[in-house]
Amino acid sequence: MKNDRFLKALRGEQLRPIPIWIMRQAGRYLPEYQEVRGKTDFLTLCKTPELAAQVTIQPVDVLGVDAAILFSDILIPLEPMGIGLDFKEGHGPVLSPPVRTEADVSRLVVHDPNETCGFVSETVKILRKELSQKVPLIGFSGAPFTLATYMIEGGSSRNFLFTKKMMFEAPDLFNKLMEKITDVTIRYLSMQINSGAEAIQVFDTWAGILSVNDYFQHVFPHVDRIFKELSTFDCPKIYFAFGGHHLLSTIKDLKVDCFGIDWRTPLNKASDLLGNDKVVQGNLDPLALFLPEKDLRDRVKVILEEGKVAKSHIFNLGHGVLPQIPAEKVKLLVEIVHDLSK
Amino acid sequence: MKNDRFLKALRGEQLRPIPIWIMRQAGRYLPEYQEVRGKTDFLTLCKTPELAAQVTIQPVDVLGVDAAILFSDILIPLEPMGIGLDFKEGHGPVLSPPVRTEADVSRLVVHDPNETCGFVSETVKILRKELSQKVPLIGFSGAPFTLATYMIEGGSSRNFLFTKKMMFEAPDLFNKLMEKITDVTIRYLSMQINSGAEAIQVFDTWAGILSVNDYFQHVFPHVDRIFKELSTFDCPKIYFAFGGHHLLSTIKDLKVDCFGIDWRTPLNKASDLLGNDKVVQGNLDPLALFLPEKDLRDRVKVILEEGKVAKSHIFNLGHGVLPQIPAEKVKLLVEIVHDLSK
Repeated sequence: MKNDRFLKALRGEQLRPIPIWIMRQAGRYLPEYQEVRGKTDFLTLCKTPELAAQVTIQPVDVLGVDAAILFSDILIPLEPMGIGLDFKEGHGPVLSPPVRTEADVSRLVVHDPNETCGFVSETVKILRKELSQKVPLIGFSGAPFTLATYMIEGGSSRNFLFTKKMMFEAPDLFNKLMEKITDVTIRYLSMQINSGAEAIQVFDTWAGILSVNDYFQHVFPHVDRIFKELSTFDCPKIYFAFGGHHLLSTIKDLKVDCFGIDWRTPLNKASDLLGNDKVVQGNLDPLALFLPEKDLRDRVKVILEEGKVAKSHIFNLGHGVLPQIPAEKVKLLVEIVHDLSK
Repeated sequence: MKNDRFLKALRGEQLRPIPIWIMRQAGRYLPEYQEVRGKTDFLTLCKTPELAAQVTIQPVDVLGVDAAILFSDILIPLEPMGIGLDFKEGHGPVLSPPVRTEADVSRLVVHDPNETCGFVSETVKILRKELSQKVPLIGFSGAPFTLATYMIEGGSSRNFLFTKKMMFEAPDLFNKLMEKITDVTIRYLSMQINSGAEAIQVFDTWAGILSVNDYFQHVFPHVDRIFKELSTFDCPKIYFAFGGHHLLSTIKDLKVDCFGIDWRTPLNKASDLLGNDKVVQGNLDPLALFLPEKDLRDRVKVILEEGKVAKSHIFNLGHGVLPQIPAEKVKLLVEIVHDLSK
């Protein structure tokens, strides 16, 4: 009964049609989501298992995607480390106080997500049950560097000044911070897998701001440790380094099953850089959903063609879908991908 | 008398020591600049030839760099196209009204910078005279796509939603806008060269947000036209596509003398992608200036080594220097580069 094309593709099977899911598919572009969200704030929604499960399932029913992804936020496991977390409407997240000194880092708690993030575990359990006849459930976390930027900057950033300042001026302190986040991340992902997540994705949204050498020195060891420690779980793993075209040949040997690729790099080029034996996931520019239907079809065709070089291909956007995109267009994309790859 | 190492390197000569200049070298990190800037607003500074010339020369005297770059802003030639331009303290630039419709684009004036931007021409003439015993003068402009993003978004942007919306929904309109900006840019750069600029750099700060295919289809033809039309001038030309690692093999045949490379791509890798017979300029992460002196030296050493693969190498940062960097550190960088490459 269950549609397991997504899991098969993650294992390297070439399928017809290929599976598709969409980053941020449970989000503000979807009227059904807006209705739930209208009654509660974002953080409460993340922390209320029944509601989080409800919005997680919506796109599966509405769009017909081949996987569900836990509705949550990458910053959730940072709060129990001892950081204030606030999502202000129209602004990005605010984390306070920012983590910038030896004392700030020392204060951070390497907590046990089973105790501190029970609502996530609960949501995963509900979802696994409710999705049992539908599609697989993806769990996720932020990657240590991406989480570190939010902690150090106190929110979003343009230049990542404080992050790089710490990395360059105080590499040992930066490393200590990365270690702590990595410890929490491993526990957090283990909890999700133990609760029933059937695949996990690690989002490294800001990895791309680093030079190849700095990524390799300051970030790679931590990402590598996450996937090595999680390799005891027979659960497929995806790593997505947004803006990471220049990092592809550096990350190719990570112990992951699949690499997310943003829209900048053609999938055949990405496969080439990754070694041609990898599963790739991507990579329509989220704003290419503004293309008229005919042009959208043409573009999907190109991406499907480029994806054929890879071991297998899971269709996705190259980044999260934006609130300004009509839900009908997203639904159309799912139909087009299924149609053209069948 | 004059230090012409920068021009020689642009022509492909390998020099010892290699030349260095620094993007945004006339800027807020410099106390001498702050003093001038304290007495006037940014736009007035750009439009007052004596003052603009004064701050242009400051880093040459203070830092000992091998080239001066005209003090101005890439948005300057947009104002006479019929766009309100305002720089609000602490915010980015505000352009109003944003250019989004057929009528908006039609209204734009393809002006003659000789008439509308006389202050730029005047500044260049003063500088050429004052720098005659010192270093060469670089003129510059924004690239059409980068300028288009500011016009369409009405300022800086995170997702470039309106830009890509126009590009995808109304490619003909987008092309018409790009044509108009390209026409102005060619005239604007010609004016600077005719007034005495000894090299020019075209900044494509936002090119990197596009996929290879979209860049090639919607942007490349216009950049290509600029350099082809300017090829009648025997004046070295630099193209800098920030975040453009994935675009390097697409842009390699542009009629330019040198490619600016941001910090993400090692220079030997960049040379490889550009075809190994190109002059490269870059590429220290501007925030790596936070490194302690010893580590900074080590990093410069690596960059100099990587740059040896290129036809020749002009040292620079991988992006503009930030106000938070101590001027002493920038001065130290110039000394280190000259010392290690001698």
